[in-house]
Amino acid sequence: MTARRRGTQVEALPRRLSYRRPKGEQLQEILEGVIAALQPGALLPSERLLAERYGVARATVTQAVEGLASRGLVYRVHGSGTFVAEPKFRQPLTLTSFTEDMRARGMTPGSVVRSQAVLPASEVVARHLALVPGSPVVHLERVRTADGEPMALERTHLPAQRLPGLETADLSDASLYELLERDWGVRVAEADQWASVVRLTADEAALLQVDPDQPALLFQRLTRDPGGAPIEYVRSLYRGDRYEVHTRLERLGG
Amino acid sequence: MTARRRGTQVEALPRRLSYRRPKGEQLQEILEGVIAALQPGALLPSERLLAERYGVARATVTQAVEGLASRGLVYRVHGSGTFVAEPKFRQPLTLTSFTEDMRARGMTPGSVVRSQAVLPASEVVARHLALVPGSPVVHLERVRTADGEPMALERTHLPAQRLPGLETADLSDASLYELLERDWGVRVAEADQWASVVRLTADEAALLQVDPDQPALLFQRLTRDPGGAPIEYVRSLYRGDRYEVHTRLERLGG
Repeated sequence: MTARRRGTQVEALPRRLSYRRPKGEQLQEILEGVIAALQPGALLPSERLLAERYGVARATVTQAVEGLASRGLVYRVHGSGTFVAEPKFRQPLTLTSFTEDMRARGMTPGSVVRSQAVLPASEVVARHLALVPGSPVVHLERVRTADGEPMALERTHLPAQRLPGLETADLSDASLYELLERDWGVRVAEADQWASVVRLTADEAALLQVDPDQPALLFQRLTRDPGGAPIEYVRSLYRGDRYEVHTRLERLGG
Repeated sequence: MTARRRGTQVEALPRRLSYRRPKGEQLQEILEGVIAALQPGALLPSERLLAERYGVARATVTQAVEGLASRGLVYRVHGSGTFVAEPKFRQPLTLTSFTEDMRARGMTPGSVVRSQAVLPASEVVARHLALVPGSPVVHLERVRTADGEPMALERTHLPAQRLPGLETADLSDASLYELLERDWGVRVAEADQWASVVRLTADEAALLQVDPDQPALLFQRLTRDPGGAPIEYVRSLYRGDRYEVHTRLERLGG
């Protein structure tokens, strides 16, 4: 059955590669087509079969598959083969909390709170929150989970004087934005976010349960209330194999 | 003079670390404050001096500095020290071509055209451009440069039947969007873009002149004309040490 399924797939693939473009790039595109037509968990054609069909070196196929794996489209199981991964989470275009986003996807959000305390603001945090360095800020560090799986490591800083008692609130199962509105009457209205790529430290990779070589997305977000006052400055590490950032771009004067 | 400058900087730093947060994280924040106050190219305090001032292991300092380097905030020169890097490019919130963006920054954009040909659309490209697989597409592969420095590797696919002759146009010094409007009357209006993180292949790292360990941003962009017809499907690798994605998020009903 497994052999049959693999055979069928290979026969459905394009017969040959163009000599005018890099073979690895074409292989990745072909496999993306295969992946789009399969369900998560389905087995891909073996690297040996692909190398035979296209008359390319096995190393070329391996590199193409590794490229797909590093983009989170497939995962490899030693001795078993390469399988279609779950689709990536696309960060919504609107300002939502992690909890709200996961609920909207029908998943169960969770948090492991690693730190929740009032600390003096460092220079960087103070600058973002428009405070004097050393002012009290609530510092939250949470591993965010979806259906129990770690997705992100969030480090949030909020002005303590505006949010008294937040350092003792129960955050293990709560949307921070909902909590701020319900218990402090503070509404978030908009945010600027900068996303960049980072390598993880060994500790961070362990917390996110990913391979230490897996790069991550670093989100820096500054969230403001309707009057424009800074409410939170967040630095989050999101798993690069599970997340992508969606933006809509419009042409000026277009 | 160098010794004096380093000494002055260290004395201006916070005296001690809090015992309530990871030391490496605090060191990174302190150094970010230092970096923000300095010009690109300025020397940071040495790792030895930082380890002494804060009574932490040299390895802790090294890891913090490496974290800043992987985010592109500093760069290390063997035997000389760690220096403040050029600020990152923030991708504009509007739909602009690389050429327009670099010109707006006062830099000289350039392109090294590696491939410019009409090829049959793969399944993935055809799906994005709403074509039948095998339809002719203009395939462009360009290394994009700013003041001569490689910034991105762009692979663009455009519908050939709508843009006859594009495969022979001079693209070495042109904004593609300006060219499409001037020579074909095709205007771009909006785009959806998905940004994710990837590891580079050795070839890609060499083209971008970065360390092979440096992760990159993969932008996938689908650009449409004012009527909503797909005009280009782009897959670009942007240097992770030089680029970040800016998004503005607004609260629904906020």
